[in-house]
Amino acid sequence: MVEVVIVGSIGLDNIETPFGKIRGTLGGSAVYSAIASSFFSKSGIVGVVGRDFPQRHLDLMQRKEIDLNGIEKKEGKTFTWTGKYDFDLNTAQTLETNLNVLEDFEPKIPEEYRKAEYVFLGNIDPELQLSVLEQMEKPKLVLSDTMNYWIESKRTKVLEVVKKVDIALMNDAEARELFKTTNLVKAAKEILKLDSDYAIIKKGEHGAVMFTEESHFSVPGYPLEDIKDPTGAGDSFAGALIGFLAKEKEINESNIRKAMVYGSIVASLEVEGMGVTNFDFVNQFKIKERFKEFKKIMQF
Amino acid sequence: MVEVVIVGSIGLDNIETPFGKIRGTLGGSAVYSAIASSFFSKSGIVGVVGRDFPQRHLDLMQRKEIDLNGIEKKEGKTFTWTGKYDFDLNTAQTLETNLNVLEDFEPKIPEEYRKAEYVFLGNIDPELQLSVLEQMEKPKLVLSDTMNYWIESKRTKVLEVVKKVDIALMNDAEARELFKTTNLVKAAKEILKLDSDYAIIKKGEHGAVMFTEESHFSVPGYPLEDIKDPTGAGDSFAGALIGFLAKEKEINESNIRKAMVYGSIVASLEVEGMGVTNFDFVNQFKIKERFKEFKKIMQF
Repeated sequence: MVEVVIVGSIGLDNIETPFGKIRGTLGGSAVYSAIASSFFSKSGIVGVVGRDFPQRHLDLMQRKEIDLNGIEKKEGKTFTWTGKYDFDLNTAQTLETNLNVLEDFEPKIPEEYRKAEYVFLGNIDPELQLSVLEQMEKPKLVLSDTMNYWIESKRTKVLEVVKKVDIALMNDAEARELFKTTNLVKAAKEILKLDSDYAIIKKGEHGAVMFTEESHFSVPGYPLEDIKDPTGAGDSFAGALIGFLAKEKEINESNIRKAMVYGSIVASLEVEGMGVTNFDFVNQFKIKERFKEFKKIMQF
Repeated sequence: MVEVVIVGSIGLDNIETPFGKIRGTLGGSAVYSAIASSFFSKSGIVGVVGRDFPQRHLDLMQRKEIDLNGIEKKEGKTFTWTGKYDFDLNTAQTLETNLNVLEDFEPKIPEEYRKAEYVFLGNIDPELQLSVLEQMEKPKLVLSDTMNYWIESKRTKVLEVVKKVDIALMNDAEARELFKTTNLVKAAKEILKLDSDYAIIKKGEHGAVMFTEESHFSVPGYPLEDIKDPTGAGDSFAGALIGFLAKEKEINESNIRKAMVYGSIVASLEVEGMGVTNFDFVNQFKIKERFKEFKKIMQF
């Protein structure tokens, strides 16, 4: 039974970093998140692909035991993203985005997904996020993400999503842009005012911070000597976070803090390879090892 | 008796941030560090000022019980720095630097400082840092800092300093520039290869990381809602770090981790006001409160 429902983009990525170049590789926010979540819980993915979507990409997700019934195959081409990173690997330069079948996508949640208690509204049009939410029966926890594109084009809808979720997640630049402040604490307080219980702000290689009305928590980024490709790090963080919470079942601050550490861990393992390729080398043992290390690197 | 000797610049700063403007305020790397250190240990400051240096600035340092015998008063004008921060407060834009009396400064360590066991070679010409080190009798712990200006103009000397110290401290941009790598882990490894026992890299609002041959530690930046002026944050971090170590007396990784947390705390308190002004509101109680909070915000 699907425990975590994840909606977002499914795509074909062309990525160039100083360490390599790959074309037509499996990508998209929902894909990274679903793979990351699958290390902890049974996850189902909701998205759309075109006729050109290779079977081997579906096979890869199947090997991760991701439920694929939520993937719609439509006439036309799959969403593609072409991006490039410079030497500092900090910011992706988007060279080309082709929405293709994503353009008029209307997510239809499979019957057997609707009872799932954990929902991740990954980076996709906020109207689609809202449509997914309406189709869910009674989720226990809804997590959301977004990106600058939607903040600029559909700010009101992005805010509506934030209002409806339990944990609003976004990265530092997005939080600053959405609430028109340079200060992350101020941005987090705005999120909480919109009635999210938890505001989590991702800071890329610098980790993430979480705020509630009464407390806050900081998880550092895992210092990596060999980052190959940061694509999907934020989505992996989110996927592992919700996957872990679904496994623990109880939603409280202590579990959310642990979930953020697992998010950082899975993201740090993911970026050690190009695209999704490094996920093949991620397993429970490696995750546990790095969890122990996180305990050590944050102890004083 | 002076326990910590701190060398660096003593100056008059003109600072402009979106939140205020001050002119001729007490500044300089040694000043911020010595005040921060003075919360933990008896600290002596080594530097030079001109005839124009106002008595009230000396009075302020005296109130902090900083030993001022290492301050030389010379004919001429005091070093001045004029800088500006934009809304994101992340990087200072240097508008003007006048070395003045600092130009031909030759530090002479007072007799009673030479037995001190803790030395901080703050940001100043690396040749002066080396000269200070030679005058010290048998320091137990030497900490160093630097800045891009010296890396660009006297790289070999900067590396010589790093070779001679126990803890090499620098910020992320400096570490990247000094070792010509974008990767901080690689830069830290280069520092350790030069025979420093500990490499500490400051990351501004994102905290700091420490590396030894076998382990690493990450302290987050304290999330602040009201940063007024980041000037001196890195120097305050360093000062509190060495001041705390001098108080604890024993140098081991556990104490260095704690010292980094105290460094983050004092820096976070300092930046809540313009220039050094907020130091007047910093006391043991506030430091202890924030230490308890750091325990909480890093716990999972």
